[in-house]
Amino acid sequence: MPHLFIDYSDNLAGLPEQQMLTELVATVCEHPSILDELDVKARIAPAKQYVIGTGSGLRGFIHADLRLMAGRTPEVKKELSDRVAEVLRRFTPHPEGMLVQVSVEITDMDRPSYHKGRL
Amino acid sequence: MPHLFIDYSDNLAGLPEQQMLTELVATVCEHPSILDELDVKARIAPAKQYVIGTGSGLRGFIHADLRLMAGRTPEVKKELSDRVAEVLRRFTPHPEGMLVQVSVEITDMDRPSYHKGRL
Amino acid sequence: MPHLFIDYSDNLAGLPEQQMLTELVATVCEHPSILDELDVKARIAPAKQYVIGTGSGLRGFIHADLRLMAGRTPEVKKELSDRVAEVLRRFTPHPEGMLVQVSVEITDMDRPSYHKGRL
Repeated sequence: MPHLFIDYSDNLAGLPEQQMLTELVATVCEHPSILDELDVKARIAPAKQYVIGTGSGLRGFIHADLRLMAGRTPEVKKELSDRVAEVLRRFTPHPEGMLVQVSVEITDMDRPSYHKGRL
Repeated sequence: MPHLFIDYSDNLAGLPEQQMLTELVATVCEHPSILDELDVKARIAPAKQYVIGTGSGLRGFIHADLRLMAGRTPEVKKELSDRVAEVLRRFTPHPEGMLVQVSVEITDMDRPSYHKGRL
Repeated sequence: MPHLFIDYSDNLAGLPEQQMLTELVATVCEHPSILDELDVKARIAPAKQYVIGTGSGLRGFIHADLRLMAGRTPEVKKELSDRVAEVLRRFTPHPEGMLVQVSVEITDMDRPSYHKGRL
């Protein structure tokens, strides 16, 4: 059931979207708390209109929201967050002179009302 | 206040976005817990860059996030989730040989800080 | 850490995206609960496919989701929501004969699992 949503400022030119997603999904799937690789669905899209703070200077960001069925322990959530962050840091370009912020958020999804099916 | 956000893998070619949204909004509005049809705002967008699990084979997904003011009972949430899922299943294409996952998430929105107004 | 996500119906032609985001970020940063201006990351995108309720007539919407680290008081959340709403109302076009809905949601982000870093 995990869903992974990633967005980033489009001044991070050359970010290898597909390669990074593939690695992210692999890393998440390897965690013992993930039971079925099929469940992990990740998508990424660049933000075209954004503002980062009020200061000057070149700035960029990449942000991931990993949405998990509620019930994971704080330890598991922290481990998954760290795994995602490590991949983001590895694949995100760092243009000369730009301050790039990397963030990962873990969101609990309501379990009783979650619907999951296949066609 | 309900907000409905839908995204889907863009390999589900031919998905009738507008027709499906119209039916989704109608179905949600018919539920007795929804007081004003005007409040229901739904949007859909295809994901262009996505990865689904680590296995091989043709895969697709459609996912809905229905965001409601906190306070609905688990029963109401489940009913709304089921209604949304039924419409997704009815309108989502099923390309030959593709495993298509359908999921619906219900999210509580914080009531005291929610702002609602009109121009 | 605050993240601001804004989407709006694309029939609100001429909405000054960049100018509105700049003002939104400035307004949020001025609140005493926000410690570092750099943390505030805002993005906006128009929704191209949407449905608003079941009634007839010209309708539009703009919606903001302000995601904050959990732990803010209800009073702080309400103040931030009101600030965001005020800016949305000031910059959102109001086409003749259109009913435009403005909404702001405040979302708590899980603090222990949140990852924040820089490249």
